Amino acid sequence: MDVLVIGGGVIGLVTAWRAAQRGLRTALADPEPGGGAAQVAAGMLAAVTELHYGEETLLGLNLASANRYPRFAAELEEASGEDTGYRSCGTLAVALDTDDRAHLRELHALQRRFGLESEWLTGRECRRLEPLLAPGVRGGLRVDGDHQIDPRRLARALVVACERAGVVFHRRWAERLSVVRDRAAGAVLAGGLSVAAGQVVLAAGSLSGRLEGLPAQAVPPVRPVKGQVLRLNVPPSYAPFLSRTVRAVVRGSHVYLVPRENGELVVGATSEELGWDTTVTAGGVYRLLRDAHELMPGITELPLTETRAGLRPGSPDNAPLLGPAELPGLLLATGHYRNGVLLTPVTGDVMAHALVTGELPDEARPFTPRRFSPAQQKVSA
Amino acid sequence: MDVLVIGGGVIGLVTAWRAAQRGLRTALADPEPGGGAAQVAAGMLAAVTELHYGEETLLGLNLASANRYPRFAAELEEASGEDTGYRSCGTLAVALDTDDRAHLRELHALQRRFGLESEWLTGRECRRLEPLLAPGVRGGLRVDGDHQIDPRRLARALVVACERAGVVFHRRWAERLSVVRDRAAGAVLAGGLSVAAGQVVLAAGSLSGRLEGLPAQAVPPVRPVKGQVLRLNVPPSYAPFLSRTVRAVVRGSHVYLVPRENGELVVGATSEELGWDTTVTAGGVYRLLRDAHELMPGITELPLTETRAGLRPGSPDNAPLLGPAELPGLLLATGHYRNGVLLTPVTGDVMAHALVTGELPDEARPFTPRRFSPAQQKVSA
Repeated sequence: MDVLVIGGGVIGLVTAWRAAQRGLRTALADPEPGGGAAQVAAGMLAAVTELHYGEETLLGLNLASANRYPRFAAELEEASGEDTGYRSCGTLAVALDTDDRAHLRELHALQRRFGLESEWLTGRECRRLEPLLAPGVRGGLRVDGDHQIDPRRLARALVVACERAGVVFHRRWAERLSVVRDRAAGAVLAGGLSVAAGQVVLAAGSLSGRLEGLPAQAVPPVRPVKGQVLRLNVPPSYAPFLSRTVRAVVRGSHVYLVPRENGELVVGATSEELGWDTTVTAGGVYRLLRDAHELMPGITELPLTETRAGLRPGSPDNAPLLGPAELPGLLLATGHYRNGVLLTPVTGDVMAHALVTGELPDEARPFTPRRFSPAQQKVSA
Repeated sequence: MDVLVIGGGVIGLVTAWRAAQRGLRTALADPEPGGGAAQVAAGMLAAVTELHYGEETLLGLNLASANRYPRFAAELEEASGEDTGYRSCGTLAVALDTDDRAHLRELHALQRRFGLESEWLTGRECRRLEPLLAPGVRGGLRVDGDHQIDPRRLARALVVACERAGVVFHRRWAERLSVVRDRAAGAVLAGGLSVAAGQVVLAAGSLSGRLEGLPAQAVPPVRPVKGQVLRLNVPPSYAPFLSRTVRAVVRGSHVYLVPRENGELVVGATSEELGWDTTVTAGGVYRLLRDAHELMPGITELPLTETRAGLRPGSPDNAPLLGPAELPGLLLATGHYRNGVLLTPVTGDVMAHALVTGELPDEARPFTPRRFSPAQQKVSA
């Protein structure tokens, strides 16, 4: 094999797919390809509404990926024969009180500073767009460029596209990185099978730091950030309940409602630093229902069909780690935190480029894992 | 067959068990014996704390059944070899605001008028009993005689006891009552099998009015009253979280927390008149979590393991319909509303007596289905 990808979430899958398309003989190890955080994620493609102070570098990558999404989704649907649920519906971020409104005003100013498309609306204008919004909505930002995809469908389509592109699936955990003469050379899988490969991509999400055999300097500084997410259902008799993604900050916590065309309404998400815990808790579900209810009182009538928790791979600067690690032959594609689904297209392109050329393309240079290596940090300091 | 019981919830099962013990050849028809509302119910045996104005007659039956519970549970465990989860833990009904407190004071006065054991506690005394209660608790009623049972275990034990007593199970719906010469004579089951029986007991819970072939005057006036219930889990590290059932009225809705010895914590219940709907809704779950959180803020940490809805068989006066119906050979055991689990022991005794003698025992006379028949109502009016 030329490439072994460890991890079959959307990031590992897109890397394997793009690598195979470039003619690299590619294998992927994961007990359940297509599983992972994408099974929980809401699938907002929110480069503009999720802009944060101090994350301007990440904004560039997020926008690059958002711009590629329509073509990426079309190409993937063509390659897999599967619908991805890509929906260019736009997003409305609303404020429920004066604090929220001040916060949204600041976000709007920041967005305009970067030339991003975003329009301030009064509460009345928000409700004209989305009539079921709470009467108390004080204003909002209409961002017509922030769309959505169904991450479960995305993951399934990527699995099929990989299969069709000749990716070899090993449906097992990779337990240990194989290192030969100070170079990554493959991995030993659960059950003892050794897979040799010229290059290894570690794309195991929040678990990426746990692979045995990683030399200390190559361990990615990722940590699990728990998210609890609900799924409601909008019966046809209630449709259209919501025509675009609606989000808000309620008393400091983010809540969003993402309506799918099939009636699914995703409500997310908590953000909890609790280690490897994926328990759905009374408090998490309560908080989401309370905040969503404050935003859209009509949700009370909707069936609650699923409660679930997943783990985002958090990184120290909330940006992904992409490209060669501090071990020859090893590349990373992890640490995508809140943006794994959004960054899927660009990650595939960047990683294929790095696998073929040994270099990161310009757009991805700021995201080299080496920014966290001790030597690099001394130079920056 | 001497007896065919239609419906294999706890009421149908206990009737079949007691009938078989009396030597009657007994069959029971239900696609899933032991299922039904008992799979959702919390299992409070709350004759005293659930006392309502105007339901004094029902109180007598409830108390009779509560008093029989220890011996009933012991006998059933002996007969089935199954644990029933019977737990004599008592109940604490608390008030969170002055309105609630006034309401509880009235309940206390009513309880004392009937000579029921119930002690008024200050908020501080409540928290001394249950330290995790909300600081805002203003007072409460300690009712040491209101216990609990695990309805799922109760149902399973009854199935085994029936099997051991020789009850013949037909695992199908009864679709049509067979009436021969103006007398109930058995039923036709799904798939076409006819079961003939000397007497038929209709114990199909909220579905009891829907059996085909019932003459109009024998259709029981029962309706489904939806209840949504949550199940949380108290990990051993949090135990003892709660040592007895705690309940409250929060803004007019009842909420209760029933702690099992195995760590399960049942939170119930909504009460909704929505026909045959058993959807778990965002609003139902939200209301329960909100009210439970107000009562015991610490529940936020607990895993939410199950959300479920069931249908109580409501009757016009909230009391059950027991004994001979307006069709010779047909008996009813339905309409138990909130008290199906509590009334299981006495219902078994009453129905066996009625099947053997043709008469209701004195304690059950007020619960004859004939109280709702047009002729009877004319007499009363």
